[in-house]
Amino acid sequence: MTDRIARAALSRLGEPGDPRLSGLVAELGAQVVYEHLRRQQDVGGTLTDVASRLRGLDPERELTDAYTRGIRFVVPGDDEWPASLADLDPAEPINRRGGAPIGLWVRGTHRLDEVCARSVAIVGSRSGTTYGAQVAYDIAAESTQQGIAVVSGAAFGIDQASHRGCLAARGRTIAVLACGVDRAYPPAHRQLIDYIAETGLLVSELPPGCSPTKLRFLSRNRLIAALSLGTVVVEAAARSGALNTANWASRLHRSLMAVPGPVTSAQSEGAHELVRTGKAVLVTRAEHVLELVSPVGSFTVPPVRAEVRRRDGFDERELRVLDALPVIHGVSVASLARTSGLSESAVRESLVVLLGEGLVESVEGLWRLRDAPAEVVR
Amino acid sequence: MTDRIARAALSRLGEPGDPRLSGLVAELGAQVVYEHLRRQQDVGGTLTDVASRLRGLDPERELTDAYTRGIRFVVPGDDEWPASLADLDPAEPINRRGGAPIGLWVRGTHRLDEVCARSVAIVGSRSGTTYGAQVAYDIAAESTQQGIAVVSGAAFGIDQASHRGCLAARGRTIAVLACGVDRAYPPAHRQLIDYIAETGLLVSELPPGCSPTKLRFLSRNRLIAALSLGTVVVEAAARSGALNTANWASRLHRSLMAVPGPVTSAQSEGAHELVRTGKAVLVTRAEHVLELVSPVGSFTVPPVRAEVRRRDGFDERELRVLDALPVIHGVSVASLARTSGLSESAVRESLVVLLGEGLVESVEGLWRLRDAPAEVVR
Repeated sequence: MTDRIARAALSRLGEPGDPRLSGLVAELGAQVVYEHLRRQQDVGGTLTDVASRLRGLDPERELTDAYTRGIRFVVPGDDEWPASLADLDPAEPINRRGGAPIGLWVRGTHRLDEVCARSVAIVGSRSGTTYGAQVAYDIAAESTQQGIAVVSGAAFGIDQASHRGCLAARGRTIAVLACGVDRAYPPAHRQLIDYIAETGLLVSELPPGCSPTKLRFLSRNRLIAALSLGTVVVEAAARSGALNTANWASRLHRSLMAVPGPVTSAQSEGAHELVRTGKAVLVTRAEHVLELVSPVGSFTVPPVRAEVRRRDGFDERELRVLDALPVIHGVSVASLARTSGLSESAVRESLVVLLGEGLVESVEGLWRLRDAPAEVVR
Repeated sequence: MTDRIARAALSRLGEPGDPRLSGLVAELGAQVVYEHLRRQQDVGGTLTDVASRLRGLDPERELTDAYTRGIRFVVPGDDEWPASLADLDPAEPINRRGGAPIGLWVRGTHRLDEVCARSVAIVGSRSGTTYGAQVAYDIAAESTQQGIAVVSGAAFGIDQASHRGCLAARGRTIAVLACGVDRAYPPAHRQLIDYIAETGLLVSELPPGCSPTKLRFLSRNRLIAALSLGTVVVEAAARSGALNTANWASRLHRSLMAVPGPVTSAQSEGAHELVRTGKAVLVTRAEHVLELVSPVGSFTVPPVRAEVRRRDGFDERELRVLDALPVIHGVSVASLARTSGLSESAVRESLVVLLGEGLVESVEGLWRLRDAPAEVVR
């Protein structure tokens, strides 16, 4: 009985994220815990629930069957086990389902740790708008082009758009499922999920064949947050599951980001609230995301700058003269002095500077703008 | 020669916000500074620019003329002089035009200090979208209904929508102009500006008759920020004048707020950047604004909560049983135990609780949901 076989058995016996089970495994080792359970011993009085699942359990055959179907079971100690999962604390109270995973069932040819090492989760409403889907798609595609993998949950709406954006840019995407990696939920995403298995990775704590349940979606969300360097919430109504992923990202000290939308859209309410309350950083494009999930200093967003204008770089007197200059009929220096509130000598000095920049011209001693600057600074 | 007359003269001689002038006035008093200028003395070599404006100046007559036209000149020491203007620091460098105003030319019947005491500035792009205009209008109207005055700049776009929202709710609005309060800029807002004079207040540092210039718009922006308790930026492109007002709000330690919009809209880029860089708090509705401009603790926004659902308040075992229960054909306790991964006794205990809440029913020993909860928690 190896550690892997014992963990495979425990992954079927327990529910994902149950910190009682992961706590015992951390303390006693998977083999000891499984042997106890096999002998129907009630370890600490906490694990009677698993009794009904013990019947017919054959983890060794299950592992072999899985391998023949292209599914491997990754456990702590394997090269590809992501070190970041150590952030999941088995001391979390049960209702948070925050325990470390016993192991991960994986489909796909890439090494899990390598894909996770530079990755961002993009999540949001299943009933996201076309606006949200487009933004998720674009951020996923552009992040991928910078070598970032996209982690999401394969759900309708924003999840789907995020995976597709990544795939369209020929990137690697990870779908973390709340069911076995041989199943597709929602069933309508069978093709998408199979394509992710071919080009990226499918990951689940649940053994092949398992169905999703509401609680499994919640514990799945913690894995989405834990496997990525940061989470982007694109659209989330006030009680969206995406906010659960967002909470996990915060608690695991990952970057939490949110994309704004129209304040008139209920689908953006949750994202706005995350930003308003200071939990998430507002991001509007992939660059902002890359800055937050890249090693410090390796990617910085240039500040938003409009193009430099012809008026930039002049001092106040020159700007006042510019303001006072007409476009069509030239005026005298005395007139410019009155309009600008400057002395005639100050006007003359400024005109020399402006002439040098090609902004003004003099016709028979009268001054006017050479090209009217198109913009009006308010 | 009273202080008021001297200040009226200086308000025509200087440019708004010139910290050299306000610094001298603070140090020597308005009368002394004006007398110096009248004698064409160059105080400290800094004020030669005003020479051309001294010709034909008659501040006493100007004040009388203004009063007959319903325009008063409010100066420090007057009851209605807003104490908050003391935050403008005459030590600001010249290019910031940050000096305290020498005085304020005012049209309207209300006391300026009283209207400012509970007020918010709402500013944004002159080329705002219908989305932005609607949001500005709504926030202005709803803030006004809570007794908050709306300060803005009477410009096209967001400014106009903010004034109109306030007026529609029969509120008091202040338009701070970059020209004399007897003029209308933009001219298309003549009617709006006159209506504001009748029901609210028009305010300007510039004496009657003065034209707006680009620099006067910039110094006007600092007054919008200074006269209000906080500034809301509704839509602002990357180099909008509204961002200048926003900077002033920050530097004067007023609350700075920004309304998000679609990330695909260039008109929201400036507002998003303010939030992303932590300069502004994201707000989506009047409640958020009221919380930030009201005395601490007097107005708090209830946290966003979706309605309480029937599934709330159950423990994990009960939720697992709920998950496992079918809608149509009932199943046995043994079947529920297998599906939920619980012992049969645990299933029975949970069913008792769920039965008590009216969520399940038993037909001939088989269990099913009584009402399928409509929602699916992801």
